[in-house]
Amino acid sequence: MVSEKTIGRLSLYRRLLTELLADDRLNVYSHELASLAGGTAPQVRRDLMAIGYSGSPSKGYDIADLADSISSFLDNPNGTRVILVGVGNLGRAIMSYFKIQRPTLNIVASFDSDPKKIGSDICDRPCCDIAELETKALELDVRMGVIAVPADRAQNVSDKLVTAGITGILNFAPTRLKVPDHVYVEHVDLTTSMEKVAYFVQSGRKSTEPDA
Amino acid sequence: MVSEKTIGRLSLYRRLLTELLADDRLNVYSHELASLAGGTAPQVRRDLMAIGYSGSPSKGYDIADLADSISSFLDNPNGTRVILVGVGNLGRAIMSYFKIQRPTLNIVASFDSDPKKIGSDICDRPCCDIAELETKALELDVRMGVIAVPADRAQNVSDKLVTAGITGILNFAPTRLKVPDHVYVEHVDLTTSMEKVAYFVQSGRKSTEPDA
Repeated sequence: MVSEKTIGRLSLYRRLLTELLADDRLNVYSHELASLAGGTAPQVRRDLMAIGYSGSPSKGYDIADLADSISSFLDNPNGTRVILVGVGNLGRAIMSYFKIQRPTLNIVASFDSDPKKIGSDICDRPCCDIAELETKALELDVRMGVIAVPADRAQNVSDKLVTAGITGILNFAPTRLKVPDHVYVEHVDLTTSMEKVAYFVQSGRKSTEPDA
Repeated sequence: MVSEKTIGRLSLYRRLLTELLADDRLNVYSHELASLAGGTAPQVRRDLMAIGYSGSPSKGYDIADLADSISSFLDNPNGTRVILVGVGNLGRAIMSYFKIQRPTLNIVASFDSDPKKIGSDICDRPCCDIAELETKALELDVRMGVIAVPADRAQNVSDKLVTAGITGILNFAPTRLKVPDHVYVEHVDLTTSMEKVAYFVQSGRKSTEPDA
């Protein structure tokens, strides 16, 4: 079983490899990839061993081959169909961001409660009535959902997604979700991230004062 | 010294308290707040003790008073001035998201290298030439920056921000940054988060197979 952290690093390595390819590079050493990823060479080698990749470290890894191997491991060859709930500013940004960045992660529909949005196309995808979330999610045969609604509605949306057979949730709502054991939740809390940086900036300013 | 994790939880508590206030609630018990935050009541009490808050647990905390105390601890009373570098889809979304969500975190200007963007207003803020990043950042007297450029340009932008006196960075680029010890970096990697969920959805599908 490959750990959550390894999966995260593999995703990062792939992106770094793609950037190296775009710079016409052909080979990369583990220490170089490690340095770009902010890790160590032994960790890079362990991560690649975990997915059964054996390169030729003497002249470095073949970049295109390694990127392909990571993709075979990480990606569903048919792509992953995703629905997004909550088409506010952030929901819309997520849709357009992933459309460009990761075409294999295909947001096939969005859901909202705003009558002005329902029935229209948002980022080239139909925006559906949130009241029909469970039936539509089943119809669309999706297993992955993105939650971009306010915190007080997130648990309700999560429950509906789980009922509809969703087994992976990317949660942007600033609240932790209660889900059954078979459901994987990744929590992205933008406001907390921003507020943490702001706090440390502010407290750093105070650091000349005693006891600060 | 209050830990990074406590700061994150305080930010979360404040948002949950604000939502309770919007529902006309006046008091909340530590176990209730803990449940909303996905933590435990002793943890909530420890976190609040860390900022010197002593409530009256017999009838629960006064919500408005507690939210105010957290704000006094977390926020710079004058607001925090922030600049954002990289006005792509995501950069734009971050600007509009924080304008609505956290008016105390004030993104005062953005920077990009695209001549079509430079000189125009984006989200009601001037978009400046990235070539002028260091001088403008000094002029604007900011200590906090958001990086929303591609990975291969992030370290260069980070170096310039540090030179200009920035001590806190929220980094959306999929690469780790090397910064001096006095600079705090919070990394938000949306693509990795999305790809992790997609991987676990896909591997969950395989879980009926042996050794999966």
